[in-house]
Amino acid sequence: MKRVAIAGATGAVGTEMLKTLEKRNFPVSSLKLLASERSVGRKLVFKGKEIAVELLRPEAFDDVDIVLSSTSGTLSKQFSPAAVERGAVVVDNTSAFRMDPKVPLVVPEVNPEDIKWHNGIIANPNCSTIIANVPLFPIYKKFGLKRFVSCTYQAVSGAGAWGIEELREQTKAYLAGEPIVKNKFPHQIAFNVFSHNSAIGPDGFNEEEAKMIRETRKIFHDNSIIISATCVRVPVFRAHTEALHCELGVKASPDEIREVLSTAPGVKIIDDVPNNHFPMPIESTEEYEVRVGRIREDYLFPNGIAMLISGDQLLKGAALNAVQIAELLLNL
Amino acid sequence: MKRVAIAGATGAVGTEMLKTLEKRNFPVSSLKLLASERSVGRKLVFKGKEIAVELLRPEAFDDVDIVLSSTSGTLSKQFSPAAVERGAVVVDNTSAFRMDPKVPLVVPEVNPEDIKWHNGIIANPNCSTIIANVPLFPIYKKFGLKRFVSCTYQAVSGAGAWGIEELREQTKAYLAGEPIVKNKFPHQIAFNVFSHNSAIGPDGFNEEEAKMIRETRKIFHDNSIIISATCVRVPVFRAHTEALHCELGVKASPDEIREVLSTAPGVKIIDDVPNNHFPMPIESTEEYEVRVGRIREDYLFPNGIAMLISGDQLLKGAALNAVQIAELLLNL
Repeated sequence: MKRVAIAGATGAVGTEMLKTLEKRNFPVSSLKLLASERSVGRKLVFKGKEIAVELLRPEAFDDVDIVLSSTSGTLSKQFSPAAVERGAVVVDNTSAFRMDPKVPLVVPEVNPEDIKWHNGIIANPNCSTIIANVPLFPIYKKFGLKRFVSCTYQAVSGAGAWGIEELREQTKAYLAGEPIVKNKFPHQIAFNVFSHNSAIGPDGFNEEEAKMIRETRKIFHDNSIIISATCVRVPVFRAHTEALHCELGVKASPDEIREVLSTAPGVKIIDDVPNNHFPMPIESTEEYEVRVGRIREDYLFPNGIAMLISGDQLLKGAALNAVQIAELLLNL
Repeated sequence: MKRVAIAGATGAVGTEMLKTLEKRNFPVSSLKLLASERSVGRKLVFKGKEIAVELLRPEAFDDVDIVLSSTSGTLSKQFSPAAVERGAVVVDNTSAFRMDPKVPLVVPEVNPEDIKWHNGIIANPNCSTIIANVPLFPIYKKFGLKRFVSCTYQAVSGAGAWGIEELREQTKAYLAGEPIVKNKFPHQIAFNVFSHNSAIGPDGFNEEEAKMIRETRKIFHDNSIIISATCVRVPVFRAHTEALHCELGVKASPDEIREVLSTAPGVKIIDDVPNNHFPMPIESTEEYEVRVGRIREDYLFPNGIAMLISGDQLLKGAALNAVQIAELLLNL
C-alpha cells in the first residue's frame, strides 16, 4: 500500500488521476489532494469518501510515497524537488524535467525499464508524444523507423480545464449570434483550427512539435529517428488525433503492421474500410487504448506506412500514463 | 458579353458562383440559374435583379455561351455533354471529367494555358487540391518539388450546404444535451474529426486523397512528383486548412520561400511568429487568396520545407476558381 498525493488535483488531468487511481484499484493507503490557494477546502470524492483539498506546499509531501503531479512547469520545478527531499517519488506530468538526463521519461508500453534509474522524479511525456509512441514503438522494434511526420488534431483539454470551458462558451456564443470572447486561447477555437498555441522556436517549430521530436528520441533511446510535426488545435473536447506518415527500416505490408499492432499493448485497431470507420476523438474519449486505423502503404516513402490514430489526451496522454508509471514503481 | 448559366445554382458552390460573377463584374449578358425540380421557381438575386431558378435539362443550355456547373458527378456526365452539343463551354466543378485526357484541369495561377486545348469542357479541380496547388506551384517552378504530403483539416462546406446545416444542428443538440442526429455524414461532426467520408480505394487511400495525388500531377504536368495525403474532416464551416511537408529539388531557406510566395498570384503570407498568428479557416473564409504561414525548414527531408495553409473551400476551392477559368475564356 502506498501513501499517495496528487499535486494539481483539481485540474483537468488531476481529476482524471484521481478517477484512474480508483478505477485501476491502485493500492492507496492514504491520499492527499494538493492544489493552489483558491482550491483549498474544495472536496473531491475517492472511493466514496470525500477528501478536502490541501494547499500545495513542501510540508504537504511529508508522509507521502508517490506524488502524481500535474501542475505547471514552474510549480513543478519548485515542488517536485521538495517532495523528493521528503522521500517521495514524483511522477511529473509537466515539461519541467522531461529532458533532464537524470530523469527518466517513460511510456510504460515503450521503456518501462527506464524507471529503474530514477532519482526521485520520473517524467510523464507530452500528450501527443505518448499517443504517437504507443503504436509506433512496436512497429519500430519489428521493422525499424527511419523517419515520421505527425500532423495533429489536438483537443482543447490539452490546455487544461479552461480550454474545455472556452470551447463550450465560444460555441454557444457563436450559435446565439453573440460576440465571441477569447479568454485564454489566442484565437477563436469554436468552428476554427489554429497552429498550436505554444511558443515558436528559432527553427520555426512550436514547443508542442519540438516535444514530439525530442521526447520520442529520448523515450526510444534513438537519436537517429528523423521526426517532424505540425501541431494544430481543433474544436474537439478531449481526445487527440494524429495523421502519421512513416518510413520504416524495411518494407512492411499493411497486414504485417496490423499483425504487429494486434498484440501490441495499449493499441486498439479500428480499421473498418467498408464502413469508413476509423479512429475518432469522440470514440477514443475515456478509453485507455490508442486507436489505430487507416493503415496503408504510404506513397511518400520507399518503405512507407501511413495511419490515423486517436487517443484520450487526459488518460493515455496524461493521467493514465502517470498511474501506469506509479504501478511500475510498486514492483521496483 | 457572355450568356451564362449556373448549373446547380442553389447549392453551396452555386450560390458562391453567382456572388463571384457579380463581385468580379463578369460580363454577363444573360444569366440562367438551373437546378433540380425541387428548387425550380426559387428566386435568387443577381445585381439587384431577381432571377427564377429553371429546371436543369438539356434544352436549358440553348443560347448559353458559358456554363458554370456544380452539380453531382452523375448529373454532370449527363448534362455537360448536352450543353457542349448546344455550343456552350462548360466549367465543371464535379469530378466527372477531371482525369479525362481530353479535358483540361485548370488552376488559373498554375496552368492557364491548358484552357486552349479544351473540347467544350474544362474541369475545376478538387477543393483541397486547388488550395495546395496555389502556393506549391511557384515553389515547384523555382526550387523543384520531389515529394509532399498534405494532412488536411477540411470544412464541412466541402460536402455541400447540408454539411454546414448538419454541423450547426449537431452542435446545438450537443450543447443542449439532446441526442445528435446524423443525417448525411457517416459520423458525428460536432466536436469531432473523422477520416474524410469518401470511398476508400484498394490502396487504402480515400477518394479525396487520391484526387490530391492524381489531380496535382495532371495540373503540374509532372507525374514524377511523389504525393501522399491524409484527408480529415473537422468541425469548421467553410475554409480548408492543410499542413504541407515538402521535399524540394534544391535547398531553399524559409526566407527564399517567402520571397517567392510574396509575389505569387493568389497567395497571402500570414506568418506572424511573435503573435502566433498563422493561417486559420475563420480568417480565410470569404477571401480569394490562399493564406500561407508556419514556413519553416522541415527536418523530415534533406531539402525540406513545411508550411500551414488555409483557403476558402467555396471560393478558391470551387466557385472563384471556376469564375477565373471563365475569365480566361473571355480572352481565348
